[in-house]
Amino acid sequence: MAVRSVGTETAAQSAPLLTLEELRAQFQATGEERYHHKHPFHLLMHEGKLSRGQLQAWALNRYYYQSIIPIKDSIILSRGPDPVFRRAWRKRVVDHDGDATTNNDGGIKRWITLAEATGLDPQMVRAGEGILPATRFAVNEYLNIVSSRTLLEAVASSLTELFSTKLITLRVEKLRQHYPWLAGGLDYFEARLCRELCLRQREDASRAGVGDPGPARQVRHPMGATRRPLLRLRAAGMAAAGRIPDRRKLA
Amino acid sequence: MAVRSVGTETAAQSAPLLTLEELRAQFQATGEERYHHKHPFHLLMHEGKLSRGQLQAWALNRYYYQSIIPIKDSIILSRGPDPVFRRAWRKRVVDHDGDATTNNDGGIKRWITLAEATGLDPQMVRAGEGILPATRFAVNEYLNIVSSRTLLEAVASSLTELFSTKLITLRVEKLRQHYPWLAGGLDYFEARLCRELCLRQREDASRAGVGDPGPARQVRHPMGATRRPLLRLRAAGMAAAGRIPDRRKLA
Repeated sequence: MAVRSVGTETAAQSAPLLTLEELRAQFQATGEERYHHKHPFHLLMHEGKLSRGQLQAWALNRYYYQSIIPIKDSIILSRGPDPVFRRAWRKRVVDHDGDATTNNDGGIKRWITLAEATGLDPQMVRAGEGILPATRFAVNEYLNIVSSRTLLEAVASSLTELFSTKLITLRVEKLRQHYPWLAGGLDYFEARLCRELCLRQREDASRAGVGDPGPARQVRHPMGATRRPLLRLRAAGMAAAGRIPDRRKLA
Repeated sequence: MAVRSVGTETAAQSAPLLTLEELRAQFQATGEERYHHKHPFHLLMHEGKLSRGQLQAWALNRYYYQSIIPIKDSIILSRGPDPVFRRAWRKRVVDHDGDATTNNDGGIKRWITLAEATGLDPQMVRAGEGILPATRFAVNEYLNIVSSRTLLEAVASSLTELFSTKLITLRVEKLRQHYPWLAGGLDYFEARLCRELCLRQREDASRAGVGDPGPARQVRHPMGATRRPLLRLRAAGMAAAGRIPDRRKLA
């Protein structure tokens, strides 16, 4: 198994539990420090210094990541012992694979539109021609991690998107500004922004006691969404012990 | 690995491909011979010869099976390289886990209602108290099979439900007749029947060129549903070679 040990398990296990406020603060600090908004490639992108070829390489390689996200989330679904948890998590698979009943094309298809706008042949993108071995390695490791580590870690590994809204807002603005020929391919980012904003509005309305928060509220919202899956997992871990088998122990 | 070899791989691989009609006929013959409608326990059930205790044992043990179905289908989702295949297959997870937006409680919850109608404590059912070791073994092996064998076999293992409509129709009638005290708990079977009938009506309307078949049509229909996932798998197997990793080879 190629999964690297995080090496902090003992420290984490013996540390006292954080309060919600402390968890929130630590979470935000980690995101500020380590989310990919500081990556040199993204800084160049936002300064308008990338060539069309570099944007093509970015779109092509990230396609491999996009294409495995619903697979990753299906693995997590298959490890979730609680129907309520699965019901909330399922939304992520829908986000990427799309849904005919709501005319949602899904993130994978929208990413191909973006790749096409950079000038790539969509068939080549789908076939994965030219994707770097290092990209395949890193993305495949993500599948290994959500398969082989604890369910809590698998869920936590999916929460990076809590930091994405600010970055996507900036990115859409910068892409429009520096690469206007790409403007027709930004559906992927715009759909994500729209989703986040809708969820926030519902959450705000719900907090103010206005209107029906709707079913999407239970699915995700920055920070609120962090807490809910973690609480469900904790509850499920206690309730389901000995009921749903650990798949690694079945053979 | 406890998965038994089916021992017919060589014969199957060298046999000529069946036509659709031959496949359909062989499929139906296998179902007629091997589906669980001939099991002595079910024959006793339909003759009104089961005690309340025996019905309780049935409801409790089958609950374990019901509870893993969306896990089994999530494993299959995670092995499907094609978003269109996953979009169709996802419906099965929804069927069991439910969906707040369509007021669908899901099959697991409805099965608990049935168990409760036999006189069992729903908390005990959820906790799995008293489920037989042989039940756990058989159900866990189902998870092993869909994880470890080919995707085609995993999909094929899920098609037994193509034979369920006739049996459920009979069962609901017989349960009402012989165990009238159970009548309030039959939502599980009635929802399945209703779903099958609605899908058939849409398919018939579509064949006759009447109305919109709607998105459910692509999901499943007896025989039509057999063919579509198999065709998608064949297409995906050819198109995706070398693109989506075989998870067993990632480590």
